[in-house]
Amino acid sequence: MSFDVERVRADFPILSTKVNGRPLVYLDSGASAQKPRVVIDAITRAYEGEYANVHRGLHYLSNLATEKYERVRAIIARFLNAPHEDEVIFTSGATEGINLVSYAWAAPRFQPGDEIVLSVLEHHANIVPWHFLRERQGVVLKWVEPEPDGSLPPEKVLAAVGPRTRLIALTHMSNVTGTVVDVGAVARGTDVPVLADGSQASVHMPVDVASLGVDFYAITGHKLYGPSGSGAMWISRARQAEMRPFLGGGDMIRTVTRETVDYAEPPLRYEAGTPSIVNQIGLGVALEYLMGLGMENVAAHERDLRDYARDRLRSLNWLSVQGDAADKGAIFSMTMQGAHAHDISTILDKRGIAVRAGTHCAMPLLEFFGVPATARASFAMYNTRAEVDALIDGLTFCRELFA
Amino acid sequence: MSFDVERVRADFPILSTKVNGRPLVYLDSGASAQKPRVVIDAITRAYEGEYANVHRGLHYLSNLATEKYERVRAIIARFLNAPHEDEVIFTSGATEGINLVSYAWAAPRFQPGDEIVLSVLEHHANIVPWHFLRERQGVVLKWVEPEPDGSLPPEKVLAAVGPRTRLIALTHMSNVTGTVVDVGAVARGTDVPVLADGSQASVHMPVDVASLGVDFYAITGHKLYGPSGSGAMWISRARQAEMRPFLGGGDMIRTVTRETVDYAEPPLRYEAGTPSIVNQIGLGVALEYLMGLGMENVAAHERDLRDYARDRLRSLNWLSVQGDAADKGAIFSMTMQGAHAHDISTILDKRGIAVRAGTHCAMPLLEFFGVPATARASFAMYNTRAEVDALIDGLTFCRELFA
Repeated sequence: MSFDVERVRADFPILSTKVNGRPLVYLDSGASAQKPRVVIDAITRAYEGEYANVHRGLHYLSNLATEKYERVRAIIARFLNAPHEDEVIFTSGATEGINLVSYAWAAPRFQPGDEIVLSVLEHHANIVPWHFLRERQGVVLKWVEPEPDGSLPPEKVLAAVGPRTRLIALTHMSNVTGTVVDVGAVARGTDVPVLADGSQASVHMPVDVASLGVDFYAITGHKLYGPSGSGAMWISRARQAEMRPFLGGGDMIRTVTRETVDYAEPPLRYEAGTPSIVNQIGLGVALEYLMGLGMENVAAHERDLRDYARDRLRSLNWLSVQGDAADKGAIFSMTMQGAHAHDISTILDKRGIAVRAGTHCAMPLLEFFGVPATARASFAMYNTRAEVDALIDGLTFCRELFA
Repeated sequence: MSFDVERVRADFPILSTKVNGRPLVYLDSGASAQKPRVVIDAITRAYEGEYANVHRGLHYLSNLATEKYERVRAIIARFLNAPHEDEVIFTSGATEGINLVSYAWAAPRFQPGDEIVLSVLEHHANIVPWHFLRERQGVVLKWVEPEPDGSLPPEKVLAAVGPRTRLIALTHMSNVTGTVVDVGAVARGTDVPVLADGSQASVHMPVDVASLGVDFYAITGHKLYGPSGSGAMWISRARQAEMRPFLGGGDMIRTVTRETVDYAEPPLRYEAGTPSIVNQIGLGVALEYLMGLGMENVAAHERDLRDYARDRLRSLNWLSVQGDAADKGAIFSMTMQGAHAHDISTILDKRGIAVRAGTHCAMPLLEFFGVPATARASFAMYNTRAEVDALIDGLTFCRELFA
């Protein structure tokens, strides 16, 4: 199947809008992706005619909503090639998913002096939950620095693993540099459990948790062209068996008395309260849409964008791009002498170009690069070479203003 | 302003649909409420033309989304008459809100032998998080039973408070019996912090957290005619100052280094990761819709429904209704000799009437009443006397089948 970017663009209503009088050039998908019509329609349809609370409802609407909601677990399992559907735990996003692992699996098992190996590439979502364990129970964080080009050789991660290492927490793709981390090679090289933050990677390339051999894999719906507040954490059965419950409430119990609680079987054990029903239904539609396009096709299109953008950005000798690993994703963090990242963003915005400026929830990595902030253009499957050109023109305009 | 139920009904698309060939009679709002057109439209509008990630975006769509998202805090503060906007913490619903209090406030402060007073009326969302503290750190749960009619005199709660009591956790309205608990009288009668679960109460009556004098107040968006995965926890500044962070990730930090984390000021400190942007925007629209109707008017309409339904249900001498407090909400849990609750629900469903059967996430209360399950009809502002009649006819039909 060929990938027709114009046809894909036509599926996203917001992409044909104008911003500041100019056609929107949306290069902020790394922060959150736009939603295709099928997702928006699925939400509308659910609320207009198929809505009720799920599970044990026994009436028509509840049964219908339950069926639509629960089948998303199978869709996610298929999307990630998860061996078992019950390894998919619904979350509100990657942040909740990683906190689930920290609170339910790591906190009750880790002793003072136990170590977590993590990379300097990590997003705060894959840092702060581990800092909690440092602050609260004396767990030690061992940091692995990337190479100057932003790449992270698996051997370097494995070299940091010692006898006290209990967990390796790694991004699968950096949200700042686009660096792809070979988490599979890390997992194959050690018996220590590996958590991969797939918030970015799952959007831009095929992911196969079974062959990666990791233990935990986080995805977040809003970056996957799905609704706000949707997501999932894939956790192997082996690790799930070691977890205690996290959030307490309805749906995660079998029986509750005044004296005791008996918990439901996984995955429900880790999903408390009325779930994010319609959002997860929307995520299912988004993933089916992606699988319909083919993640290999998406990845190929984005490789083309990456190569084209990389070449054109390299030609701007007044621009620094942080991170340049060969097989990186189409995410470019940039600094320009004399211009603050926020100014770049603001000036590009006047031309309808949306990029993000700041630390991108990755302060340790920005410190590593020695920059206080960057302007980040993050491409997605609906972006085009013409939008790369618009970015280059915009950056050139900034340069002229500030030079 | 008068309350025109037919006009309200016309605002909810799903209410004019048919189920099993009959007009839908939706009496399951206690589990989750339907959504008005304005909420559905707000979601569509956001995704079609106003969407990006919030906070620090600096580009047009991000600023627009941030503005729409952040103003919901003020709407919720107004809805609850909260003294300060920063006391409103966005959550995915009441379950996450109560777990936030358990993990961030109670867990690090409570010692073995410390007591939590809670009522037998509670929903599992206001039980299981406290069972965690019992299981994990030896906190003692002290249970207060309601009267046989389901009412819960504040004096009875206060009588259970002792020198080791650190928290009183109470529903403001039972989701099984409709019992309204005078949480304000409890709060006035003690210095012990009070958590009120307003999941039901906030939907059916005006709530004023300032005059109630409680410390924590949970609301959940999906019951308030808002989207899946929306909600908020109101926490007084005094209690917030005693809390540590709960979920770790982006947005809740000021700075992150390899060695340390410095946390953001509340309320952001307690809101990690990309929030449920569009859902909270939808919740804001739902609450503005409710305030436009006037919660006093909503409450008056539902009192009328309650009185009418109570009278008609009382006339069925083969039906037992669990809980009959004078000022209860319009929620009726019912059992019928010879018919299982699930059978009742299934038979009513054939007539287009949606009621819920089961334990309603309130097993201790069902045990108190000595029933394994009930069929529950929960009314909302869009229900009518004619729908009460349909329920009575349906129940009579069940009786004829099973008698």
